[in-house]
Amino acid sequence: MKKIVQCVPNLSEGRDSGKIERIVAPLKDKEGFKVISVEPDQDYNRTVITLLGDPESMIDPLEAFFARATEEIDMNEHEGEHPRMGAIDVVPFIPISGLKIADCVGYATRLAERVGTHLGIPVFLYAEAATAKNRVSLPKIRKGEFEGMKEKIKSEQWKPDFGPQACHETFGTTAIGARIPLIAYNIDLNTDDEKIAGSIARAIRKSSGGFQHIQAGPAYLEERGHVQVTMNILDYKKNPIYRIYETVKMEAKRDQVEIMSSEVVGLIPLDTLKRSIAYYLSAEGKDVPETMSIDDVVLAARTYLLIRDFSHSKIIEANL
Amino acid sequence: MKKIVQCVPNLSEGRDSGKIERIVAPLKDKEGFKVISVEPDQDYNRTVITLLGDPESMIDPLEAFFARATEEIDMNEHEGEHPRMGAIDVVPFIPISGLKIADCVGYATRLAERVGTHLGIPVFLYAEAATAKNRVSLPKIRKGEFEGMKEKIKSEQWKPDFGPQACHETFGTTAIGARIPLIAYNIDLNTDDEKIAGSIARAIRKSSGGFQHIQAGPAYLEERGHVQVTMNILDYKKNPIYRIYETVKMEAKRDQVEIMSSEVVGLIPLDTLKRSIAYYLSAEGKDVPETMSIDDVVLAARTYLLIRDFSHSKIIEANL
Repeated sequence: MKKIVQCVPNLSEGRDSGKIERIVAPLKDKEGFKVISVEPDQDYNRTVITLLGDPESMIDPLEAFFARATEEIDMNEHEGEHPRMGAIDVVPFIPISGLKIADCVGYATRLAERVGTHLGIPVFLYAEAATAKNRVSLPKIRKGEFEGMKEKIKSEQWKPDFGPQACHETFGTTAIGARIPLIAYNIDLNTDDEKIAGSIARAIRKSSGGFQHIQAGPAYLEERGHVQVTMNILDYKKNPIYRIYETVKMEAKRDQVEIMSSEVVGLIPLDTLKRSIAYYLSAEGKDVPETMSIDDVVLAARTYLLIRDFSHSKIIEANL
Repeated sequence: MKKIVQCVPNLSEGRDSGKIERIVAPLKDKEGFKVISVEPDQDYNRTVITLLGDPESMIDPLEAFFARATEEIDMNEHEGEHPRMGAIDVVPFIPISGLKIADCVGYATRLAERVGTHLGIPVFLYAEAATAKNRVSLPKIRKGEFEGMKEKIKSEQWKPDFGPQACHETFGTTAIGARIPLIAYNIDLNTDDEKIAGSIARAIRKSSGGFQHIQAGPAYLEERGHVQVTMNILDYKKNPIYRIYETVKMEAKRDQVEIMSSEVVGLIPLDTLKRSIAYYLSAEGKDVPETMSIDDVVLAARTYLLIRDFSHSKIIEANL
């Protein structure tokens, strides 16, 4: 089985498209993996890049991408709403198929060593690749951000895993790590009352007593004129989409509110959708087919979960 | 507002009804509180006693009850399926109204001091009353049971909070503490397939990714010929009954299984039921009345949650 990872570098530049293009260039048209998307955000002044394919093939181009960022970005001039500590702020490796999280820790560590020793950038290994408990959480590492890291990095507790124990003057620092796939999923409600979305979010999210692997909050979509419950599903096997969808539907009933549609942000593994479709087919007394084409899955996801703006390209496996 | 606590001493005698009666006698017909139930279990050789009322009034009678147990029970001869470390194994104080958990810690501590100093019984404060992290969990304190405590108690780590640092020869040791109300709630399914109840339990319980305050497992009820999902709801405000009930109903649909009825074991606070009834009334577009009589609540709980064998006497407030 071919080894496939999803790798999602976050670049601290979301406004200057020329710069973004030059920095991303070393990742393009390479053997073994594809650049699935490059999504700049102006308010955040940050660009999320999604790579998919063979992790072995990604290492050299990623090092070149880091090198290009040191040339193009001066973090002393960076402004944006999203917290950040470096020109390339974070690079997670996510196992998709043919390998495990431990293998992704290996690729993350190899890239971290290259970036630290070849480019003189301090690197923190994070999430599953963390070498200490206080380095698992990216927000904890990043606290203080670019400006604060200059002092923070001097303490023994925050000595980087690779590279010098001093911030790179223009780049800052970076975090490289491995984590399981996370599904960014939002459910649209036919109301503009953010309170309703808020109380539903509290019902389902871990932090207020709900499902263990759900982060959730309310959001008002100004242009669309309705609210949504916006979530991260951190473990879709333990908290499958259909369970969250049906619980949101049930909670919304209290206020005579209905689900209008739902939304997948970024990519989603085929298996996530298949599991939820299997629930609905079984509930309807239908057989669950052993294999389903991506076409079938897209259609069923639209039917049962009302996923809007959904197409093949959102499914990881369709991009392989 | 009157201070009301529920206090649930567990007695290590479930077979000899004469003995049980003599030990419980000091608790009966007292001013300020009532003995709501005395429930012996032969297999466990253990009796659960439920008191309800003013905690101040309970202290003297509870001390007398402990004294009577030292006379009547010799733990060296005790056999039973339930783990136990003393003749009175555990005494939790549970806030019901007019006081907080911190107040219950106070009553627990006062009783513990009396039992320790007057009767020479080693006492561990547990749950919310615990004085160290490893004393929060009763099973952790009790590990080794009556027999093993003789050695365990000698270590500095297991020095009791009150009483001598040596087991009482015939009584053993005891745990006294404070905890929030816990709802024992079971949902009956119209199937005899325990696997279905098991996979639903996994979907809803904390330990496998479900709701934060739910413990759940499957059980086959031999005499009734069906399975149930049996649970403890540790925080009914954060994980209300209706949410659990509706999630179980939704999960059961996968196997074309339906909820036949549900069951409350022991007592339940009125507020628990009111909150869930409010959900169903709102979902039906009906007004939620500001006050509901206990009659109304019992009827609505039967209607919406199909609670079987349910009556006034199961509701804490109806016993006040």
